[in-house]
Amino acid sequence: MELIVKDMDIATGDVQVVILNKKDAQEMDLHPMDRVVVKRNGKKTVAILDIAESKKAVPPGRIGLFEEVLDALGAKNGDKARIDIAEKPESVSYIKKKLDGQHLNAREIDSIVKDIVDNNLTDVELTSFVIASYTRGMNMKEVAMLTTAMAKTGDMLKFNKYPVVDVHSIGGVPGNRTTMLIVPLLVAAGCIVPKTSSRAITSPAGTADTMEVLCPVILPINKLRKIIDDVGGFIIWGGAVNLAPADDRIIRVEHPLSIDAEGQMLASIMAKKASVGATHLLMEIPLGIGTKVKDKKQAKHLSRHFSELGHALNIKIKTILTDGSQPIGNGIGSVLEAKDVIWALKNDSRAPPDLIKKSIWMTGILLEFVGKARKGQGYKMASKLLTTGAGYGAMTRIVEAQGGKMPNPDDLKPAQKTFTFKADKTGKLQCIDNLAIAKTARLAGAPVDPDAGIFLHKHCGDKIKKGEPILTIYSRSAHKLSYAINAFRKMKGVMIS
Amino acid sequence: MELIVKDMDIATGDVQVVILNKKDAQEMDLHPMDRVVVKRNGKKTVAILDIAESKKAVPPGRIGLFEEVLDALGAKNGDKARIDIAEKPESVSYIKKKLDGQHLNAREIDSIVKDIVDNNLTDVELTSFVIASYTRGMNMKEVAMLTTAMAKTGDMLKFNKYPVVDVHSIGGVPGNRTTMLIVPLLVAAGCIVPKTSSRAITSPAGTADTMEVLCPVILPINKLRKIIDDVGGFIIWGGAVNLAPADDRIIRVEHPLSIDAEGQMLASIMAKKASVGATHLLMEIPLGIGTKVKDKKQAKHLSRHFSELGHALNIKIKTILTDGSQPIGNGIGSVLEAKDVIWALKNDSRAPPDLIKKSIWMTGILLEFVGKARKGQGYKMASKLLTTGAGYGAMTRIVEAQGGKMPNPDDLKPAQKTFTFKADKTGKLQCIDNLAIAKTARLAGAPVDPDAGIFLHKHCGDKIKKGEPILTIYSRSAHKLSYAINAFRKMKGVMIS
Repeated sequence: MELIVKDMDIATGDVQVVILNKKDAQEMDLHPMDRVVVKRNGKKTVAILDIAESKKAVPPGRIGLFEEVLDALGAKNGDKARIDIAEKPESVSYIKKKLDGQHLNAREIDSIVKDIVDNNLTDVELTSFVIASYTRGMNMKEVAMLTTAMAKTGDMLKFNKYPVVDVHSIGGVPGNRTTMLIVPLLVAAGCIVPKTSSRAITSPAGTADTMEVLCPVILPINKLRKIIDDVGGFIIWGGAVNLAPADDRIIRVEHPLSIDAEGQMLASIMAKKASVGATHLLMEIPLGIGTKVKDKKQAKHLSRHFSELGHALNIKIKTILTDGSQPIGNGIGSVLEAKDVIWALKNDSRAPPDLIKKSIWMTGILLEFVGKARKGQGYKMASKLLTTGAGYGAMTRIVEAQGGKMPNPDDLKPAQKTFTFKADKTGKLQCIDNLAIAKTARLAGAPVDPDAGIFLHKHCGDKIKKGEPILTIYSRSAHKLSYAINAFRKMKGVMIS
Repeated sequence: MELIVKDMDIATGDVQVVILNKKDAQEMDLHPMDRVVVKRNGKKTVAILDIAESKKAVPPGRIGLFEEVLDALGAKNGDKARIDIAEKPESVSYIKKKLDGQHLNAREIDSIVKDIVDNNLTDVELTSFVIASYTRGMNMKEVAMLTTAMAKTGDMLKFNKYPVVDVHSIGGVPGNRTTMLIVPLLVAAGCIVPKTSSRAITSPAGTADTMEVLCPVILPINKLRKIIDDVGGFIIWGGAVNLAPADDRIIRVEHPLSIDAEGQMLASIMAKKASVGATHLLMEIPLGIGTKVKDKKQAKHLSRHFSELGHALNIKIKTILTDGSQPIGNGIGSVLEAKDVIWALKNDSRAPPDLIKKSIWMTGILLEFVGKARKGQGYKMASKLLTTGAGYGAMTRIVEAQGGKMPNPDDLKPAQKTFTFKADKTGKLQCIDNLAIAKTARLAGAPVDPDAGIFLHKHCGDKIKKGEPILTIYSRSAHKLSYAINAFRKMKGVMIS
């Protein structure tokens, strides 16, 4: 049946919805929640059917399309479209197989992932796959096949260069901005480093948020290829490139139940590394209170699985366990973290020594791993790349290639409303709770306000005198500031003894 | 924020959807797919948020409500309503628990079922529960708690009488209309029999469809109570009473993946028996090609679980295995089946002997089970109730109490387009495939056309001469008839040897 498109001007955020008038639906024997295929000019998409009860909403002879469907079909008001009942996708039978505890082969996993990306599965079917994979588990062979399927259904950034280096941290530590030092140091050493980073989800800032203080982090793919050719590396927001798009849909389903299926987590991380054609990957697993990985045992278990998966994907992987017991660096929040990073690259005395040390150490490991430094010489080489200004030079080229201009860190101003917590006695600073710090910085405005955040005057184990500042909160509004202060007080984020 | 209701005139079929203008959503920090609570005049409901991209769809200051939300709030165009982000229901954490393989207690299961009935769970969360229960399994204690929770969140039809008898068949055999004989025979013997039956889903007719040939099967609850007081029994469509409403939502999720989780199947059946206050239940498990239960082993396993569950719910259960290898009775399809039933009740010679024999046998078992007949005397008593016309009298009273009039079976006319398959050789009729019969009857128009269906002239094992009729197909249109004929030929539904 040919129908005239009505633009409903409604968006669901992801799910594709079309609307028929009751009369047309009855005539075609279609029912609410039916899966239908809508076609226009050779394009087609699968959607869920809702029913218009009156001709006011959608008159007979017309088909109401939500934004997601209009986009998928490239359709506009008044166009012609056809609608049919959609066959149940073949992949549903493979999901059933996993549900019944069987293992899936590559063809079956490819088919499921393709249908996820093409939006052919309903929420019920997609959820069934995610939950079944979680409760039944996936073996490493399945995880490798899932990873490959996720990578190849998205954009691939193959550069045909060697070595292509990547570094990944399994989150949970605020202010962990080592990536913004490691990338330029590696680039200065001649490595190819196509780094995609995340924005903050539950943290005060992601690497992409901090990088955005310096330059755009959303760039088209052809521009990224040119930057790799010209400069050798970039730091962009992963969400802006279409790498492993199945991942976002899977995460949307995992999110409400806080599911952290190991197989899907491994696939999610590694698919994006495969998409950028990484040859070498340094995987950091921070351990401490509030970190994602809970203990050494879990870390070793994960490390083994990453290696196995790397082997299957032809990516060399080295895993390191790091101290995640307290924030790294002094600044928390995009602007304050960016200041730390530039000070470090400029060898400024205000740079946080812990951030520098950790970044040089990790860069050194990578330089040896890819063969740029001889065994035992990596740390020295990385240190030299920093102190000579080679790292700063590389970062300046990266920032400019991405369309920004390297700022003077003293011109980067944090938000103006401030409050400083001071020591109420003399003693030793015992601990700084990562979760309390993250929560407080977010209440102060991070990551939405890039200049909001926290500056740490002291770190764990430092001696402190009564009246000395421990940390300063920065916020754009007195209102948010007082929220942050009260929350931090309540959470008792610091202890002196 | 107070908003003015806009009636969107759109229905999803179940899921509740509201729409805000982009501007309002941004101001309230709400996003597409957020779970929101909408309040109006003391009523509230939980819905999923979609976003209007223009003021044409929903202008700022207004809130677009889909039909399901309008119904839940009793709202209409121009009313005022408030919207807030909804807290994640507590039951989601219990779903997570099941997901992680733990057992749930009664409070947790109650909370999940209540949220299913109140529509507080998204499809992702509901599916997670169903799939987790399927892959992790439920122990019998959990199944009993689920059953109780499902029963008590719906209407309860307690009659405070004894015995309240029910009979249930785990489907798969076409034309199995024993219920329409057993119920009046039991009523004639003084039992209370509040029978809720299903309509056809994949079969040519359900008991409710066949009963509807004689009288209405959708009746209000107060009317049902009166019928029990006046007559002692009824046969209605279960979908018309709000018994165990969680069940429909669970089935909607199981359907696309053809999941048949044993625990949920047990709970689904038994919740409805608990809702009508049954004290005694006869559970029939037909075995044969195309029946739901595959073999004796599975049947015995199920039987044990039904007994355990009955024990927990204080319902006495007897399970019988029956021959499900071929259709029972001669007529398939509502009108043809109704003719069989009335002929049987009237002791007419045209009544199918297999249907009579099976019905008397099952009635006899129940009469002994509830103590109306002494051990070994049930069959005789049931037979007498039939031959004396007591059963016919009871059925006439039931049909009239439900608002119908008992027809002369000769006035019930099947559809006019017919085709008769005849024996192509002399021999013995080997088998009649249940699935082929069901499929053919449906293609001929059943259950939508009550007068469409099949009449079996011969049964399995009967001797047949070349040219004698085997079965006749009845249909309203030549078109449907030819579909049915071709399909039956292709499926080779009968064999003579």
